[in-house]
Amino acid sequence: MNALESVDQYLTEHAERNVEQLKDFLRIASVSADSAFAAEMTKAAEFVRAQMVDAGLNVEVVETAGFPIVYGSRIVSEDVPTVLVYGHYDVQPPDPLEDWITPAFDPHERDGNLYARGATDNKGQLYTHLKSIEAWTKTQDAPPVNVKVIIEGEEEVGSNNLDHFLETRKEDLAADVAVVSDTSQYGPGMPAITYGLRGIMACEVTLRGPKQDLHSGVFGGAIANPVNALAKMVGSLVDENGRVTIPGFYDGVIPLTDGERKQFANLPFDEASFLEKIGVKETFGEEGYTTLERRWARPTCEINGFYGGYQGEGPKTIIPSFATAKITCRLVPDQNPQSVAAALKSHLQSLCPAGVELEFTDQHGGNGMVVDMTGPFAAAASRAIDDAFGTPPVLIREGGSIPVVASFREILGIDTLLLGWGQNTDNLHSPNEHFNLQDFHRGTRASAHLLHYLAEK
Amino acid sequence: MNALESVDQYLTEHAERNVEQLKDFLRIASVSADSAFAAEMTKAAEFVRAQMVDAGLNVEVVETAGFPIVYGSRIVSEDVPTVLVYGHYDVQPPDPLEDWITPAFDPHERDGNLYARGATDNKGQLYTHLKSIEAWTKTQDAPPVNVKVIIEGEEEVGSNNLDHFLETRKEDLAADVAVVSDTSQYGPGMPAITYGLRGIMACEVTLRGPKQDLHSGVFGGAIANPVNALAKMVGSLVDENGRVTIPGFYDGVIPLTDGERKQFANLPFDEASFLEKIGVKETFGEEGYTTLERRWARPTCEINGFYGGYQGEGPKTIIPSFATAKITCRLVPDQNPQSVAAALKSHLQSLCPAGVELEFTDQHGGNGMVVDMTGPFAAAASRAIDDAFGTPPVLIREGGSIPVVASFREILGIDTLLLGWGQNTDNLHSPNEHFNLQDFHRGTRASAHLLHYLAEK
Repeated sequence: MNALESVDQYLTEHAERNVEQLKDFLRIASVSADSAFAAEMTKAAEFVRAQMVDAGLNVEVVETAGFPIVYGSRIVSEDVPTVLVYGHYDVQPPDPLEDWITPAFDPHERDGNLYARGATDNKGQLYTHLKSIEAWTKTQDAPPVNVKVIIEGEEEVGSNNLDHFLETRKEDLAADVAVVSDTSQYGPGMPAITYGLRGIMACEVTLRGPKQDLHSGVFGGAIANPVNALAKMVGSLVDENGRVTIPGFYDGVIPLTDGERKQFANLPFDEASFLEKIGVKETFGEEGYTTLERRWARPTCEINGFYGGYQGEGPKTIIPSFATAKITCRLVPDQNPQSVAAALKSHLQSLCPAGVELEFTDQHGGNGMVVDMTGPFAAAASRAIDDAFGTPPVLIREGGSIPVVASFREILGIDTLLLGWGQNTDNLHSPNEHFNLQDFHRGTRASAHLLHYLAEK
Repeated sequence: MNALESVDQYLTEHAERNVEQLKDFLRIASVSADSAFAAEMTKAAEFVRAQMVDAGLNVEVVETAGFPIVYGSRIVSEDVPTVLVYGHYDVQPPDPLEDWITPAFDPHERDGNLYARGATDNKGQLYTHLKSIEAWTKTQDAPPVNVKVIIEGEEEVGSNNLDHFLETRKEDLAADVAVVSDTSQYGPGMPAITYGLRGIMACEVTLRGPKQDLHSGVFGGAIANPVNALAKMVGSLVDENGRVTIPGFYDGVIPLTDGERKQFANLPFDEASFLEKIGVKETFGEEGYTTLERRWARPTCEINGFYGGYQGEGPKTIIPSFATAKITCRLVPDQNPQSVAAALKSHLQSLCPAGVELEFTDQHGGNGMVVDMTGPFAAAASRAIDDAFGTPPVLIREGGSIPVVASFREILGIDTLLLGWGQNTDNLHSPNEHFNLQDFHRGTRASAHLLHYLAEK
């Protein structure tokens, strides 16, 4: 029996015990948003610490300005890659309590699922990695790669102390790739690797005209109306074909490959039910791209808020003194948020009519990311998932950003493999959160196999 | 001594008495906005009634749902025109009291001006017409034309009961022309006839997209953002050259004549100080027109308010569920408010992208007006002003609307001569309101001569 076979056997033999341990973890009401649960947060951190010790890691509980970060590591050799695993032990508040069929912090199994707050987000998913490392340690004395595991307690409240930890412990945390299981499969029986996320550029634009609102009868026609002007300026940023008109906006955009487009096209996607769910009759977007392509892999320019002039009932005949728009652009690799902000600013300036003054406030930005799926890490993940789920993962991207992924890239300089074992129907953040137990076991096995294949490189 | 000379002599002899009587009128604190002054309102209506009786009119005090309308008339012959004079006996509140050099309701003369609340708006100006009619009655037994005089008590609070009076008494009020002295001269020593006002079309446009705000990362790029879409649609309504782009918008616009343009161009107008006062660096408007032409005689399309999406601090990454814009167009003769509203609605519908729904609410409208200055009434007013002020009036237009003028046109079917004796620096609606006494006497004489020249037709 080779190493992998021993690990598999160990996981099979301990499957039931793993579920019971996970239930213990889920009984801890580690709600980070509510200070009434502070003692439970300490208990959860301690639980994680003990589990990491069991898994053979050297563990420290790192105090922060908020809840502690539990950090464990095991360095086995300079010749093998280092994997950084991330998860979080805090959970969403369980409200509304009356909607839970069984109590949020009293885990129950039904129909092959384990029901409890945190079952999938993220206790159940992070636990797969702790159990896979444990299996390696118990059967082979050590995992086949160096492992570093960060389990924080503030993901649900903004991860405010994580970046500080990453920055101050940058050398300790050096790794080749990060692994995070905090996303979902594409659908039941369709495990996925999320290999791309969009970045963002956020800004606010204000146009100032007359020093106060003016009578539109007395002054109308003689001076620029800041609301008309701003509407014209920001309204022109996306054309009738859904293309962003900012000069240079698409510079650096890495086009979708034929392979990616084929991959997306093969994914089951029911546009009618997608639209019905959000109450929209027709799609609108960049010409020449499908809905999934537009959402996952093409940049956007959205006005998130617009304010100007009279907001009450009925008409009011004024030329407003100013108007403001909040704008975010979703970006894709290799667009640069700073360059996009600069291009937008200078484009708006070029559109600004006489007699109004432009104020541009650059708010924040983050790069989009795509992990090279032809690289060794992705290949290892793909093989591991195929082993555990009986089918290779579909490759998907996501339209949003995941802050921890951006932090790993910016602070530690590494890519992240987003390996979701759950489903997006698992009621994350809602009553009756659950996690399919078969997927829990498959995820644990996939994690174990991933460590094996990474070591093969 | 002919009739006009007798009238002039009477006015000269009674000049001082007229001022003393006006002071009595100004001592009545007839503030319509504040119910604490209700007894003073009754006193003011009674004062006007008595003055009309003195002037030889048949008077009734017409009760309304609010303050009474004092209505007097004198029919002298079927062969002469009928003039309808309008004024209001209510005044603005006097606050802030501490800013008055002499008390608001204790009239004082200083530097040739009479200081008191209502001195120019409108007691002093309306009084010129009562005194001119009185002079005709006392010296010639009757005015040379039929006169009807409406003095209402709710102009400063919206004239809510005036239209009802006009409608129910339509036949009694039949007249050939209305005269209102509730505007200003163009400047000191520059009496003016305001012969044109702009009309208006008001509406509200809402674009509805998804049934609730959506995450701009997950959905951005795939559906129309109602704020982007509405900004594009309403932002395109005025082009870079200040032209309104609604198809058919300019249909019916009566172009400025060469004579009018010359007339406007000859008016002293200091653009730099106009801009400085409102805090704007440059003008912006319809190409090919001067600032006065743009303000007085060209139609506009102004967004008075725009609301959509997130309004708080910082960014929020949403696709807003809806966006709303309030729009008013200032119109000029012969644009039709209903046609403009219909044209705007259908234009917006043609611009509306897939996946958002347009709601269009037509709010109110009113026609612009121009009095034919080549007609007999304007000629009479011009001659009368030349007699009294020693210079012919300049002909001006105004960019706003004056509701009573619209009501006279719509309900009674007559034009209004807007003959302002005050200055726009008279502190209307502010502390230390005043009226130049020389202009008071000139205005009274101009009114008397106007009745004479109207009779000559």
